[in-house]
Amino acid sequence: MNVLSVVKVMLTVTLLMGSTAWPARAMDHEALLTQPGVYGTFAAFQMDHDWWDLTGEARVIAVSEVKGLIEQFSYKLVIESYLLRGLSDHADFMFRVHAQALSDTQQFLTSLLGTRFGRHLVVTTYLHGLTKQAAYVPGFPAQMKAALQAPTEVETKSYAIVIPIKKDADWWALDLDTRRSLMQEHTAAALPYMQSVKRKLYHSSGLDDLDFITYFETEKLDDFHSLIRALEQVKEFRHNRRFGHPTLLGTVRPLDDILELFAR
Amino acid sequence: MNVLSVVKVMLTVTLLMGSTAWPARAMDHEALLTQPGVYGTFAAFQMDHDWWDLTGEARVIAVSEVKGLIEQFSYKLVIESYLLRGLSDHADFMFRVHAQALSDTQQFLTSLLGTRFGRHLVVTTYLHGLTKQAAYVPGFPAQMKAALQAPTEVETKSYAIVIPIKKDADWWALDLDTRRSLMQEHTAAALPYMQSVKRKLYHSSGLDDLDFITYFETEKLDDFHSLIRALEQVKEFRHNRRFGHPTLLGTVRPLDDILELFAR
Amino acid sequence: MNVLSVVKVMLTVTLLMGSTAWPARAMDHEALLTQPGVYGTFAAFQMDHDWWDLTGEARVIAVSEVKGLIEQFSYKLVIESYLLRGLSDHADFMFRVHAQALSDTQQFLTSLLGTRFGRHLVVTTYLHGLTKQAAYVPGFPAQMKAALQAPTEVETKSYAIVIPIKKDADWWALDLDTRRSLMQEHTAAALPYMQSVKRKLYHSSGLDDLDFITYFETEKLDDFHSLIRALEQVKEFRHNRRFGHPTLLGTVRPLDDILELFAR
Amino acid sequence: MNVLSVVKVMLTVTLLMGSTAWPARAMDHEALLTQPGVYGTFAAFQMDHDWWDLTGEARVIAVSEVKGLIEQFSYKLVIESYLLRGLSDHADFMFRVHAQALSDTQQFLTSLLGTRFGRHLVVTTYLHGLTKQAAYVPGFPAQMKAALQAPTEVETKSYAIVIPIKKDADWWALDLDTRRSLMQEHTAAALPYMQSVKRKLYHSSGLDDLDFITYFETEKLDDFHSLIRALEQVKEFRHNRRFGHPTLLGTVRPLDDILELFAR
Amino acid sequence: MNVLSVVKVMLTVTLLMGSTAWPARAMDHEALLTQPGVYGTFAAFQMDHDWWDLTGEARVIAVSEVKGLIEQFSYKLVIESYLLRGLSDHADFMFRVHAQALSDTQQFLTSLLGTRFGRHLVVTTYLHGLTKQAAYVPGFPAQMKAALQAPTEVETKSYAIVIPIKKDADWWALDLDTRRSLMQEHTAAALPYMQSVKRKLYHSSGLDDLDFITYFETEKLDDFHSLIRALEQVKEFRHNRRFGHPTLLGTVRPLDDILELFAR
Repeated sequence: MNVLSVVKVMLTVTLLMGSTAWPARAMDHEALLTQPGVYGTFAAFQMDHDWWDLTGEARVIAVSEVKGLIEQFSYKLVIESYLLRGLSDHADFMFRVHAQALSDTQQFLTSLLGTRFGRHLVVTTYLHGLTKQAAYVPGFPAQMKAALQAPTEVETKSYAIVIPIKKDADWWALDLDTRRSLMQEHTAAALPYMQSVKRKLYHSSGLDDLDFITYFETEKLDDFHSLIRALEQVKEFRHNRRFGHPTLLGTVRPLDDILELFAR
Repeated sequence: MNVLSVVKVMLTVTLLMGSTAWPARAMDHEALLTQPGVYGTFAAFQMDHDWWDLTGEARVIAVSEVKGLIEQFSYKLVIESYLLRGLSDHADFMFRVHAQALSDTQQFLTSLLGTRFGRHLVVTTYLHGLTKQAAYVPGFPAQMKAALQAPTEVETKSYAIVIPIKKDADWWALDLDTRRSLMQEHTAAALPYMQSVKRKLYHSSGLDDLDFITYFETEKLDDFHSLIRALEQVKEFRHNRRFGHPTLLGTVRPLDDILELFAR
Repeated sequence: MNVLSVVKVMLTVTLLMGSTAWPARAMDHEALLTQPGVYGTFAAFQMDHDWWDLTGEARVIAVSEVKGLIEQFSYKLVIESYLLRGLSDHADFMFRVHAQALSDTQQFLTSLLGTRFGRHLVVTTYLHGLTKQAAYVPGFPAQMKAALQAPTEVETKSYAIVIPIKKDADWWALDLDTRRSLMQEHTAAALPYMQSVKRKLYHSSGLDDLDFITYFETEKLDDFHSLIRALEQVKEFRHNRRFGHPTLLGTVRPLDDILELFAR
Repeated sequence: MNVLSVVKVMLTVTLLMGSTAWPARAMDHEALLTQPGVYGTFAAFQMDHDWWDLTGEARVIAVSEVKGLIEQFSYKLVIESYLLRGLSDHADFMFRVHAQALSDTQQFLTSLLGTRFGRHLVVTTYLHGLTKQAAYVPGFPAQMKAALQAPTEVETKSYAIVIPIKKDADWWALDLDTRRSLMQEHTAAALPYMQSVKRKLYHSSGLDDLDFITYFETEKLDDFHSLIRALEQVKEFRHNRRFGHPTLLGTVRPLDDILELFAR
Repeated sequence: MNVLSVVKVMLTVTLLMGSTAWPARAMDHEALLTQPGVYGTFAAFQMDHDWWDLTGEARVIAVSEVKGLIEQFSYKLVIESYLLRGLSDHADFMFRVHAQALSDTQQFLTSLLGTRFGRHLVVTTYLHGLTKQAAYVPGFPAQMKAALQAPTEVETKSYAIVIPIKKDADWWALDLDTRRSLMQEHTAAALPYMQSVKRKLYHSSGLDDLDFITYFETEKLDDFHSLIRALEQVKEFRHNRRFGHPTLLGTVRPLDDILELFAR
């Protein structure tokens, strides 16, 4: 049969790939993760209850189709996976996708939703943002700049947290110098946690009902908690009209681990 | 059989139409897209999960029924289609409909929902607005007026964004001169993006829980982001009680592309 | 069979009734629509997706049961019908019911929901209000009073809009004279639209999470839009804590037209 | 069969009980309805659409199981029933339960939800409160105290309204004398409606996201509306951060009437 | 059969365990419940309606699988169970989980959701927090410190209440001394209820859209109500931007009692 043979080929491909599922081409990968002007999308999904009415075999086939798809898109995109199940209320897993163009991300997510697996997914949240050159850092004191450039620990952090932020109108009405000085106070409060909590910032105005997406990775959740407590106490925090809602909390996980939860 | 032969005819019509799916009559089209006093409706839909329980054949028939319907209404309406799937959380696609009367739009959407395809659609959002003569531009300086009339780039823009806006009561309590002066500052901030971001404004007060629908098309999403950032920083922005919620983000797509996602 | 013969009788009754579906007895009708002390209910419904799994015959029978029911209640109530489908997000149709007692309206709606048709309805919104003597008009200048009593155009208006309103606590804390003077400014702004936009006011405090339901009918939606824009600009508007949410927009339609959408 | 014979016995019991369904033991009943320190729960439910897929016989059996259950609990609790269908958006009926301990109420509601009838119920709202001695009345003038003790009309009122209230932080920061004086103004505004509108107050802080549940019974809904309008105009009203949301409106009804709606 | 024999073994294990279901190892248990640096998760669930379509036997097997699972995790976690059904609107039961690492809690909840029982669960709410050394107590007067260390009553309290709290930005902008002095007033108001209401505090900033989770156990709900009323009247209360939403109210119950509700 036509469909079955396609599936067979896909399964073969998947087996050949092994469990380190979807390596992007080295150079693109690096550029997508470090350069400004890259689009980051956080896409959180929940599996519907009907999924479990499928036979075990159907679920295995469906899951392997997803693996093939992600492999295929890893030539254009960097796709990272997170398990939210058991930590976030209405989501089971999340992808962070980095792309040169949001239309590439759309093509991937549309393809995903079109698979037999995807037809059972409920989209919990999409958040889109853009990486940019740091706006305020150039005006910071030299010592602070140096501290910000200290090498962060290399290992993969086990927890990931996504906090969307919307500033109030007063924030944007402040002149650049005032905002820089407020951000300097913010940064000083954050410095003690630089080693243990990795941060990344995405700019969202217009792309979403947000101004920023803040992304964190850490092995020390209590340090991360202390970081947020410290940030709550600086003056800039008063200008956050929305902070979280949702706060997405999960663990960094290989795709295979996540998919296996739904295959077995 | 009766039904089948109707479908056959419809399929034939569709094939003859080719992929440039639904051209409205040239003059109406032009007038509807450029004149004041035209009603614009943004209608976003999501496909329910039961759709995928239909046989492939049933889906193909259902989809071709929609093509026939849109062809039929294209003599009265301008209907443009957008793929939201993969970019907006709770919507798969959107129509922008321009009509002389909202009752015509209602007739189209009611017919759509009555098709076998439509019975599986969940209405995500309807936004209605009215095109009007620019309220403040006549009082702007001559140079700004000229800049606003500069020809925009002709090509189809790949991304479309819809942002509904509700002003606060203070805004409407300001006198016309004050509002014009605030809008002049707003317009000055927007001018650098005129070439790369196409804008269109619809007035909604009374037709919806909104005052305005702002519609954007662009190939350069980062320019669009910079435009919104610039607008966040002018004084008029403080009078936006609602900005987005939802922000609808998608790509301009021929109807055939969108329907094919649901047929296959 | 018992059930079938009942249905047969109902169908016969319906056929005899013709398409001018449910005339209330002339005098009651007039009193209910014009007197103070009458309860008005706006009841908006959405059809669930399972409805379409019924056979065409079952749908026709179910629909004719509704017609019989409304005929039966038209001796006590004035029931008007509106098509919301294609214009309002989460509703397909709406009834406006005028009654001497809300318990009569409850009896009707409970009976409706108990029919085979009603079992597939999802209640979108109920809004309840009471007609009362105009509170501020007696203190208005003579000229304004005269203008308010000018005969309105007789024809049925094609569009209907329902906007619920909740005033803020400051409004109710104002003394009567101040409120009258603010309402006089409001009324002056509305006067130019008296001819083309018909208005009716219901008082809701305590009956619902509202203070007022404002109901509009018009053939000229752009005039209606201009009316609301004019009202947004008077001082009284600042005291609206809620205005809309939802705004229900639809078209005045005979019951038969609406039911036919669900029968075919 | 075991199950069938149980049902038979239950049906027999129900038939012997007649239609005055669930009399609590006289003394407990009186104490629960009049003493301080009693817990009141308002529990509103909606029937799901699947209920109607049961056979008529299965529905009759399920309904009689509920009657038996309520009879059984009427030795500990006072359970009153209300029909919300046709008046409140998302609820079909409501129980008001008075109990010495909330754990008794929980046992009843858990048992109810465990019946074949209960498995089709969606819980719309639970509101919990506690009856307490009047806090401010002791300090009111003698004449007002007397007016408050005038005998209320004895007959059952046809309408019931439940309005949950949350005060703002400013209210609780006022000293007792100031609050008493504000409540005296509130009470004076309410006095004219004492005869026709019966009121009962429950204290909820901590038990729910509320401070108070206000419960009303009346045959004259227009008097009730005027009462709320009068209360909106006193200074104390400015301290209501939440008033309603939801406002539950229904009619006092014997349990048998309500259950019959779902049996037939 | 493979599956059936696994179930058989599980059933055997469960029978051997008896009804005191999941004792954690004594020392870990004590440390997890009393030390700072422990993660507490409140996980509330609702059973979907499809659960009741399973056969009684299938439900019994599914339920015993959960017992085995919790037994297995009780070597790492302290898992306490609460019945919310009949008291909280959208939840049937809740687990409070104490763990050294949130990833352990995630592993447990993910395993739970993967069981035949878990596939029918809808996650109502997850709340995460961290136990910490008391921040303000060290600066309190000696007498108050002593009062706070008085032994609390040992017996299990029947009711449990969870109230999430989010402070406003002003709170965090206050200096430590001011916050300590406000918390001293707060604590003084709470002291009279120390004996009858047990409290525990979790810090949530960053882990959730909250700053704190406050957890209460009491046999005297009226005392708990009076405690919250007392806390509403101190100045610190004005800094609660969110208090509740949801307030989770339930009773402390052995797992077996809760599971039996769904097995029978």
